[in-house]
Amino acid sequence: MPAGPFAPAAREAVYRAIHTRRDVRDQFLPDPLPEDLVLRLLQAAHAAPSVGFMQPWSFILIRDGETKAKAHAAFQRANDEAAAMFAGEQQALYRNLKLEGLLKAPLSIVVTSDPDRAGPVVLGRTHNPKMDLYSTVCAVQNLWLAARAEGVGVGWVSIFRDEDVRALLGIPQRVEIVAWLCLGYVGDLYVEPELAIKGWRQRLPLEDLVFEGRWGDAKASE
Amino acid sequence: MPAGPFAPAAREAVYRAIHTRRDVRDQFLPDPLPEDLVLRLLQAAHAAPSVGFMQPWSFILIRDGETKAKAHAAFQRANDEAAAMFAGEQQALYRNLKLEGLLKAPLSIVVTSDPDRAGPVVLGRTHNPKMDLYSTVCAVQNLWLAARAEGVGVGWVSIFRDEDVRALLGIPQRVEIVAWLCLGYVGDLYVEPELAIKGWRQRLPLEDLVFEGRWGDAKASE
Repeated sequence: MPAGPFAPAAREAVYRAIHTRRDVRDQFLPDPLPEDLVLRLLQAAHAAPSVGFMQPWSFILIRDGETKAKAHAAFQRANDEAAAMFAGEQQALYRNLKLEGLLKAPLSIVVTSDPDRAGPVVLGRTHNPKMDLYSTVCAVQNLWLAARAEGVGVGWVSIFRDEDVRALLGIPQRVEIVAWLCLGYVGDLYVEPELAIKGWRQRLPLEDLVFEGRWGDAKASE
Repeated sequence: MPAGPFAPAAREAVYRAIHTRRDVRDQFLPDPLPEDLVLRLLQAAHAAPSVGFMQPWSFILIRDGETKAKAHAAFQRANDEAAAMFAGEQQALYRNLKLEGLLKAPLSIVVTSDPDRAGPVVLGRTHNPKMDLYSTVCAVQNLWLAARAEGVGVGWVSIFRDEDVRALLGIPQRVEIVAWLCLGYVGDLYVEPELAIKGWRQRLPLEDLVFEGRWGDAKASE
Protein backbone atom coordinates (compact mmCIF):
# COMPACT_ATOMS: atom_id res chain seq x y z
CA MET A 1 0.00 0.00 0.00
CA PRO A 2 1.31 3.52 -0.75
CA ALA A 3 3.38 4.99 2.07
CA GLY A 4 3.41 8.62 0.99
CA PRO A 5 2.65 11.64 3.15
CA PHE A 6 -0.95 12.52 3.96
CA ALA A 7 -2.49 15.55 2.25
CA PRO A 8 -1.84 18.72 4.30
CA ALA A 9 -5.28 18.82 5.98
CA ALA A 10 -5.06 15.16 6.99
CA ARG A 11 -1.53 15.59 8.28
CA GLU A 12 -2.66 18.59 10.32
CA ALA A 13 -5.49 16.50 11.80
CA VAL A 14 -2.97 13.97 13.10
CA TYR A 15 -0.85 16.74 14.62
CA ARG A 16 -3.97 18.36 16.08
CA ALA A 17 -4.87 15.14 17.88
CA ILE A 18 -1.31 14.88 19.20
CA HIS A 19 -0.99 18.49 20.34
CA THR A 20 -4.48 19.04 21.79
CA ARG A 21 -4.72 15.70 23.64
CA ARG A 22 -4.97 16.25 27.41
CA ASP A 23 -5.04 14.13 30.55
CA VAL A 24 -8.60 14.81 31.73
CA ARG A 25 -9.47 14.56 35.42
CA ASP A 26 -12.47 16.74 36.07
CA GLN A 27 -14.20 17.84 32.87
CA PHE A 28 -16.12 14.64 32.15
CA LEU A 29 -19.77 14.87 31.11
CA PRO A 30 -22.07 12.07 32.29
CA ASP A 31 -23.40 11.10 28.84
CA PRO A 32 -22.67 7.46 28.02
CA LEU A 33 -20.35 6.74 25.10
CA PRO A 34 -22.00 4.99 22.13
CA GLU A 35 -21.00 1.35 21.68
CA ASP A 36 -19.75 1.89 18.12
CA LEU A 37 -17.48 4.71 19.31
CA VAL A 38 -16.05 2.54 22.11
CA LEU A 39 -15.42 -0.21 19.57
CA ARG A 40 -13.52 2.22 17.33
CA LEU A 41 -11.34 3.22 20.28
CA LEU A 42 -10.60 -0.43 21.09
CA GLN A 43 -9.83 -1.15 17.43
CA ALA A 44 -7.38 1.79 17.48
CA ALA A 45 -5.70 0.34 20.58
CA HIS A 46 -5.59 -3.11 18.98
CA ALA A 47 -3.80 -1.60 15.93
CA ALA A 48 -0.79 -0.65 18.08
CA PRO A 49 2.64 -2.06 17.31
CA SER A 50 3.55 -5.04 19.48
CA VAL A 51 6.78 -6.89 19.99
CA GLY A 52 6.76 -10.11 17.94
CA PHE A 53 3.14 -9.19 17.09
CA MET A 54 2.23 -10.69 20.48
CA GLN A 55 -0.67 -8.25 21.14
CA PRO A 56 -0.32 -8.70 24.91
CA TRP A 57 -3.13 -6.29 25.81
CA SER A 58 -6.58 -6.89 27.27
CA PHE A 59 -9.25 -4.30 28.00
CA ILE A 60 -11.67 -4.43 30.94
CA LEU A 61 -14.63 -2.09 30.45
CA ILE A 62 -16.14 -0.74 33.66
CA ARG A 63 -19.47 1.09 33.72
CA ASP A 64 -20.78 -0.26 37.02
CA GLY A 65 -21.10 2.37 39.76
CA GLU A 66 -20.17 0.01 42.59
CA THR A 67 -16.89 -1.02 40.95
CA LYS A 68 -16.09 2.64 40.24
CA ALA A 69 -16.80 3.55 43.87
CA LYS A 70 -14.46 0.81 45.10
CA ALA A 71 -11.78 1.98 42.67
CA HIS A 72 -12.24 5.50 43.95
CA ALA A 73 -11.79 4.33 47.54
CA ALA A 74 -8.60 2.50 46.50
CA PHE A 75 -7.37 5.67 44.82
CA GLN A 76 -8.09 7.73 47.95
CA ARG A 77 -6.08 5.34 50.11
CA ALA A 78 -3.11 5.41 47.76
CA ASN A 79 -3.38 9.15 47.22
CA ASP A 80 -3.18 9.83 50.95
CA GLU A 81 0.03 7.79 51.02
CA ALA A 82 1.29 9.69 47.98
CA ALA A 83 0.53 13.13 49.42
CA ALA A 84 2.53 12.30 52.55
CA MET A 85 5.63 11.75 50.36
CA PHE A 86 5.73 15.45 49.41
CA ALA A 87 6.95 18.15 51.79
CA GLY A 88 5.65 21.59 52.78
CA GLU A 89 4.15 23.78 50.06
CA GLN A 90 4.45 21.03 47.51
CA GLN A 91 2.27 18.77 49.65
CA ALA A 92 -0.34 21.51 50.03
CA LEU A 93 -0.40 22.01 46.24
CA TYR A 94 -0.55 18.24 45.70
CA ARG A 95 -3.57 17.91 47.97
CA ASN A 96 -5.36 20.62 45.98
CA LEU A 97 -4.91 18.88 42.64
CA LYS A 98 -7.73 16.80 41.17
CA LEU A 99 -5.94 13.68 39.96
CA GLU A 100 -8.71 11.36 38.81
CA GLY A 101 -12.19 11.33 37.32
CA LEU A 102 -13.19 7.82 38.41
CA LEU A 103 -16.71 8.68 39.56
CA LYS A 104 -17.50 11.34 36.96
CA ALA A 105 -16.33 9.49 33.85
CA PRO A 106 -19.07 7.22 32.47
CA LEU A 107 -16.57 4.57 31.33
CA SER A 108 -13.31 3.22 32.66
CA ILE A 109 -11.05 0.96 30.61
CA VAL A 110 -8.38 -0.96 32.46
CA VAL A 111 -5.56 -2.01 30.15
CA THR A 112 -3.48 -5.04 31.08
CA SER A 113 -0.49 -6.86 29.58
CA ASP A 114 -0.15 -10.64 29.53
CA PRO A 115 3.52 -11.68 29.32
CA ASP A 116 2.57 -15.25 28.35
CA ARG A 117 0.37 -14.44 25.37
CA ALA A 118 2.89 -15.64 22.77
CA GLY A 119 4.81 -18.29 24.69
CA PRO A 120 7.94 -17.91 26.81
CA VAL A 121 10.32 -16.75 24.04
CA VAL A 122 9.02 -13.71 22.15
CA LEU A 123 10.62 -12.27 19.03
CA GLY A 124 12.06 -8.85 20.01
CA ARG A 125 11.63 -9.40 23.77
CA THR A 126 14.66 -11.68 24.10
CA HIS A 127 16.96 -8.82 25.16
CA ASN A 128 14.45 -6.44 26.73
CA PRO A 129 11.87 -8.03 29.05
CA LYS A 130 9.81 -4.83 29.18
CA MET A 131 8.98 -4.82 25.47
CA ASP A 132 5.55 -6.39 26.05
CA LEU A 133 4.66 -3.64 28.51
CA TYR A 134 5.86 -1.05 26.01
CA SER A 135 3.60 -2.55 23.34
CA THR A 136 0.65 -2.23 25.68
CA VAL A 137 1.47 1.44 26.34
CA CYS A 138 1.47 2.04 22.57
CA ALA A 139 -2.08 0.67 22.58
CA VAL A 140 -3.02 3.15 25.32
CA GLN A 141 -1.61 6.07 23.34
CA ASN A 142 -3.42 4.97 20.17
CA LEU A 143 -6.69 4.85 22.10
CA TRP A 144 -5.99 8.25 23.65
CA LEU A 145 -5.40 9.97 20.29
CA ALA A 146 -8.41 8.28 18.68
CA ALA A 147 -10.49 9.49 21.64
CA ARG A 148 -9.31 13.05 21.08
CA ALA A 149 -10.52 12.89 17.46
CA GLU A 150 -13.88 11.56 18.75
CA GLY A 151 -14.28 14.42 21.24
CA VAL A 152 -13.72 12.02 24.13
CA GLY A 153 -11.45 12.92 27.03
CA VAL A 154 -9.16 10.35 28.64
CA GLY A 155 -7.43 10.43 32.02
CA TRP A 156 -4.79 7.90 33.10
CA VAL A 157 -5.06 7.15 36.83
CA SER A 158 -1.85 5.61 38.18
CA ILE A 159 -2.22 6.22 41.92
CA PHE A 160 -3.38 2.80 43.11
CA ARG A 161 -1.85 -0.02 45.07
CA ASP A 162 -1.53 -2.70 42.41
CA GLU A 163 -3.08 -5.37 44.68
CA ASP A 164 -6.23 -3.28 45.20
CA VAL A 165 -7.03 -3.10 41.47
CA ARG A 166 -6.02 -6.74 41.01
CA ALA A 167 -8.43 -7.90 43.73
CA LEU A 168 -11.23 -5.61 42.58
CA LEU A 169 -11.17 -6.86 38.98
CA GLY A 170 -9.95 -10.43 39.51
CA ILE A 171 -6.80 -9.94 37.44
CA PRO A 172 -4.41 -12.95 37.58
CA GLN A 173 -1.03 -12.42 39.23
CA ARG A 174 0.90 -13.08 36.02
CA VAL A 175 -0.91 -10.29 34.16
CA GLU A 176 0.47 -6.78 34.56
CA ILE A 177 -1.92 -3.87 35.15
CA VAL A 178 -0.66 -1.08 32.89
CA ALA A 179 -3.32 1.65 32.98
CA TRP A 180 -6.66 2.62 34.47
CA LEU A 181 -8.21 4.98 31.92
CA CYS A 182 -11.25 7.18 32.60
CA LEU A 183 -13.23 8.13 29.49
CA GLY A 184 -16.09 10.48 28.73
CA TYR A 185 -17.17 13.37 26.60
CA VAL A 186 -15.74 16.70 27.74
CA GLY A 187 -16.95 20.24 27.24
CA ASP A 188 -13.58 21.98 27.22
CA LEU A 189 -9.93 21.06 27.36
CA TYR A 190 -7.07 22.99 28.91
CA VAL A 191 -4.90 24.77 26.35
CA GLU A 192 -1.81 23.50 28.16
CA PRO A 193 -1.36 20.44 30.40
CA GLU A 194 -3.32 20.94 33.62
CA LEU A 195 -0.25 20.43 35.81
CA ALA A 196 1.45 23.37 34.04
CA ILE A 197 -1.60 25.61 34.43
CA LYS A 198 -1.90 24.71 38.12
CA GLY A 199 1.78 25.56 38.69
CA TRP A 200 3.04 22.05 39.43
CA ARG A 201 5.65 21.81 36.65
CA GLN A 202 6.31 23.55 33.33
CA ARG A 203 7.12 22.29 29.84
CA LEU A 204 10.83 21.76 29.22
CA PRO A 205 12.50 23.33 26.17
CA LEU A 206 12.67 20.61 23.52
CA GLU A 207 16.17 21.63 22.44
CA ASP A 208 17.50 20.61 25.87
CA LEU A 209 16.28 17.07 25.25
CA VAL A 210 17.79 16.48 21.81
CA PHE A 211 21.35 15.28 21.28
CA GLU A 212 23.28 14.71 18.07
CA GLY A 213 25.27 11.49 17.70
CA ARG A 214 25.69 10.60 21.36
CA TRP A 215 24.37 11.44 24.83
CA GLY A 216 25.17 14.97 25.95
CA ASP A 217 26.28 16.38 22.61
CA ALA A 218 23.93 19.27 21.88
CA LYS A 219 22.14 19.10 18.55
CA ALA A 220 24.40 20.88 16.07
CA SER A 221 21.67 22.31 13.88
CA GLU A 222 19.76 24.22 16.56
CA MET B 1 -10.28 25.19 24.21
CA PRO B 2 -13.17 23.28 22.60
CA ALA B 3 -13.02 19.53 23.12
CA GLY B 4 -15.54 18.43 20.52
CA PRO B 5 -15.08 15.72 17.92
CA PHE B 6 -13.04 16.42 14.80
CA ALA B 7 -14.89 16.82 11.49
CA PRO B 8 -15.31 13.42 9.77
CA ALA B 9 -12.39 13.82 7.36
CA ALA B 10 -10.03 14.89 10.15
CA ARG B 11 -11.19 12.04 12.37
CA GLU B 12 -10.59 9.59 9.53
CA ALA B 13 -7.07 10.97 9.07
CA VAL B 14 -6.26 10.13 12.70
CA TYR B 15 -7.63 6.61 12.27
CA ARG B 16 -5.76 6.25 8.98
CA ALA B 17 -2.47 7.05 10.72
CA ILE B 18 -3.30 4.54 13.46
CA HIS B 19 -4.39 1.72 11.15
CA THR B 20 -1.81 2.09 8.37
CA ARG B 21 1.22 2.60 10.64
CA ARG B 22 3.74 -0.24 10.21
CA ASP B 23 6.99 -1.36 11.80
CA VAL B 24 9.36 -0.84 8.87
CA ARG B 25 12.51 -2.92 8.59
CA ASP B 26 13.51 -3.07 4.95
CA GLN B 27 11.65 -0.52 2.83
CA PHE B 28 13.68 2.56 3.74
CA LEU B 29 14.76 4.93 0.97
CA PRO B 30 18.15 6.63 1.39
CA ASP B 31 16.88 10.23 1.00
CA PRO B 32 17.69 12.31 4.09
CA LEU B 33 14.76 13.65 6.12
CA PRO B 34 14.40 17.46 6.09
CA GLU B 35 15.30 19.16 9.36
CA ASP B 36 11.89 20.81 9.72
CA LEU B 37 10.19 17.43 9.35
CA VAL B 38 12.44 15.87 12.00
CA LEU B 39 11.64 18.78 14.30
CA ARG B 40 7.89 18.22 13.82
CA LEU B 41 8.34 14.56 14.76
CA LEU B 42 10.28 15.50 17.90
CA GLN B 43 7.64 18.10 18.82
CA ALA B 44 4.99 15.39 18.46
CA ALA B 45 6.96 13.13 20.77
CA HIS B 46 7.44 15.98 23.25
CA ALA B 47 3.64 16.51 23.31
CA ALA B 48 3.11 13.05 24.83
CA PRO B 49 1.44 12.66 28.22
CA SER B 50 3.91 12.23 31.06
CA VAL B 51 3.45 11.24 34.65
CA GLY B 52 3.58 14.35 36.85
CA PHE B 53 4.45 16.24 33.62
CA MET B 54 8.02 15.03 34.19
CA GLN B 55 8.84 14.72 30.45
CA PRO B 56 11.51 12.09 31.15
CA TRP B 57 12.46 11.54 27.51
CA SER B 58 15.59 12.48 25.58
CA PHE B 59 16.28 11.92 21.88
CA ILE B 60 19.67 11.05 20.39
CA LEU B 61 19.76 11.62 16.62
CA ILE B 62 22.17 9.38 14.73
CA ARG B 63 23.07 9.99 11.09
CA ASP B 64 26.71 8.95 11.26
CA GLY B 65 27.55 5.81 9.27
CA GLU B 66 30.18 4.58 11.70
CA THR B 67 27.79 4.68 14.68
CA LYS B 68 25.13 2.92 12.61
CA ALA B 69 27.62 0.21 11.60
CA LYS B 70 28.54 -0.37 15.25
CA ALA B 71 24.87 -0.54 16.21
CA HIS B 72 24.31 -3.02 13.42
CA ALA B 73 27.17 -5.20 14.71
CA ALA B 74 25.63 -5.05 18.21
CA PHE B 75 22.27 -6.07 16.75
CA GLN B 76 23.86 -9.00 14.90
CA ARG B 77 25.47 -10.29 18.10
CA ALA B 78 22.23 -10.08 20.05
CA ASN B 79 20.19 -11.47 17.18
CA ASP B 80 22.38 -14.57 16.98
CA GLU B 81 21.72 -15.12 20.68
CA ALA B 82 18.00 -14.54 20.09
CA ALA B 83 17.77 -16.97 17.17
CA ALA B 84 19.31 -19.73 19.29
CA MET B 85 16.40 -19.37 21.76
CA PHE B 86 13.91 -20.64 19.17
CA ALA B 87 13.65 -24.30 18.18
CA GLY B 88 13.36 -26.16 14.86
CA GLU B 89 11.22 -24.63 12.14
CA GLN B 90 10.57 -21.53 14.21
CA GLN B 91 14.32 -20.87 14.37
CA ALA B 92 14.63 -21.27 10.61
CA LEU B 93 11.77 -18.80 10.06
CA TYR B 94 13.27 -16.40 12.63
CA ARG B 95 16.61 -16.40 10.84
CA ASN B 96 14.86 -15.53 7.57
CA LEU B 97 13.12 -12.47 8.99
CA LYS B 98 14.57 -9.02 8.43
CA LEU B 99 14.28 -7.40 11.86
CA GLU B 100 16.05 -4.06 11.51
CA GLY B 101 16.84 -1.30 9.05
CA LEU B 102 19.82 0.17 10.89
CA LEU B 103 22.07 0.62 7.85
CA LYS B 104 19.38 1.49 5.29
CA ALA B 105 17.47 4.08 7.33
CA PRO B 106 19.03 7.55 6.95
CA LEU B 107 18.20 8.52 10.55
CA SER B 108 18.08 6.69 13.86
CA ILE B 109 16.52 8.24 16.97
CA VAL B 110 17.34 6.61 20.29
CA VAL B 111 14.73 7.46 22.91
CA THR B 112 15.75 7.35 26.57
CA SER B 113 14.01 7.90 29.91
CA ASP B 114 15.60 9.72 32.84
CA PRO B 115 14.02 8.61 36.14
CA ASP B 116 15.55 11.61 37.96
CA ARG B 117 14.21 14.37 35.74
CA ALA B 118 11.66 15.64 38.27
CA GLY B 119 13.28 14.66 41.57
CA PRO B 120 12.92 11.47 43.58
CA VAL B 121 9.18 11.72 44.31
CA VAL B 122 7.07 12.13 41.17
CA LEU B 123 3.33 12.84 41.15
CA GLY B 124 1.64 9.72 39.76
CA ARG B 125 4.76 7.52 39.98
CA THR B 126 4.49 7.00 43.75
CA HIS B 127 2.66 3.67 43.37
CA ASN B 128 3.93 2.52 39.98
CA PRO B 129 7.68 2.94 39.40
CA LYS B 130 7.33 2.18 35.68
CA MET B 131 5.15 5.22 34.94
CA ASP B 132 8.10 7.28 33.67
CA LEU B 133 8.98 4.54 31.19
CA TYR B 134 5.36 4.41 30.08
CA SER B 135 5.40 8.18 29.46
CA THR B 136 8.44 7.75 27.25
CA VAL B 137 6.71 5.01 25.26
CA CYS B 138 3.78 7.39 24.68
CA ALA B 139 6.32 9.79 23.15
CA VAL B 140 7.54 7.02 20.85
CA GLN B 141 4.01 6.26 19.67
CA ASN B 142 3.26 9.95 19.07
CA LEU B 143 6.39 10.20 16.93
CA TRP B 144 5.48 7.02 15.05
CA LEU B 145 1.98 8.24 14.13
CA ALA B 146 3.25 11.69 13.14
CA ALA B 147 5.83 9.97 10.96
CA ARG B 148 3.11 7.97 9.20
CA ALA B 149 1.31 11.22 8.34
CA GLU B 150 4.60 12.59 6.98
CA GLY B 151 5.18 9.55 4.76
CA VAL B 152 8.07 8.46 6.97
CA GLY B 153 8.49 4.86 8.05
CA VAL B 154 9.64 3.92 11.54
CA GLY B 155 11.06 0.66 12.84
CA TRP B 156 11.64 -0.09 16.53
CA VAL B 157 14.76 -2.25 17.01
CA SER B 158 14.75 -3.98 20.40
CA ILE B 159 17.27 -6.76 19.86
CA PHE B 160 20.36 -5.30 21.52
CA ARG B 161 22.29 -5.98 24.69
CA ASP B 162 21.56 -2.87 26.71
CA GLU B 163 25.22 -2.37 27.62
CA ASP B 164 26.26 -2.31 23.94
CA VAL B 165 23.98 0.64 23.11
CA ARG B 166 24.87 2.36 26.37
CA ALA B 167 28.60 2.18 25.62
CA LEU B 168 28.18 3.16 21.96
CA LEU B 169 26.21 6.34 22.78
CA GLY B 170 27.67 7.21 26.20
CA ILE B 171 24.31 6.93 27.98
CA PRO B 172 24.60 7.21 31.79
CA GLN B 173 23.74 4.14 33.87
CA ARG B 174 20.77 5.83 35.56
CA VAL B 175 19.08 6.61 32.22
CA GLU B 176 16.95 3.84 30.72
CA ILE B 177 17.23 3.10 26.99
CA VAL B 178 13.64 2.67 25.79
CA ALA B 179 13.80 2.50 22.00
CA TRP B 180 16.12 2.52 19.02
CA LEU B 181 14.02 3.86 16.15
CA CYS B 182 15.04 3.73 12.47
CA LEU B 183 13.44 6.40 10.29
CA GLY B 184 13.28 7.11 6.59
CA TYR B 185 10.96 7.66 3.67
CA VAL B 186 9.41 4.47 2.34
CA GLY B 187 7.99 3.60 -1.04
CA ASP B 188 5.36 1.11 0.08
CA LEU B 189 4.01 -0.29 3.32
CA TYR B 190 2.67 -3.76 4.01
CA VAL B 191 -1.15 -3.90 4.16
CA GLU B 192 -0.88 -6.02 7.32
CA PRO B 193 1.91 -6.26 9.88
CA GLU B 194 4.96 -7.86 8.27
CA LEU B 195 5.12 -10.64 10.88
CA ALA B 196 1.57 -11.70 9.93
CA ILE B 197 2.39 -11.66 6.20
CA LYS B 198 5.56 -13.67 6.77
CA GLY B 199 3.61 -16.26 8.77
CA TRP B 200 5.16 -15.62 12.17
CA ARG B 201 1.96 -14.78 14.07
CA GLN B 202 -1.56 -13.62 13.17
CA ARG B 203 -3.83 -10.87 14.51
CA LEU B 204 -5.96 -11.95 17.47
CA PRO B 205 -9.74 -11.39 17.41
CA LEU B 206 -10.38 -8.20 19.37
CA GLU B 207 -13.46 -9.64 21.06
CA ASP B 208 -11.26 -12.20 22.83
CA LEU B 209 -9.36 -9.34 24.47
CA VAL B 210 -12.29 -7.32 25.83
CA PHE B 211 -13.95 -8.02 29.17
CA GLU B 212 -16.95 -6.38 30.80
CA GLY B 213 -16.72 -5.44 34.45
CA ARG B 214 -13.93 -7.76 35.53
CA TRP B 215 -11.21 -10.05 34.14
CA GLY B 216 -12.52 -13.05 32.24
CA ASP B 217 -16.14 -11.93 31.88
CA ALA B 218 -16.79 -11.74 28.14
CA LYS B 219 -18.10 -8.42 26.90
CA ALA B 220 -21.89 -8.66 27.09
CA SER B 221 -22.70 -6.49 24.11
CA GLU B 222 -20.73 -8.41 21.50
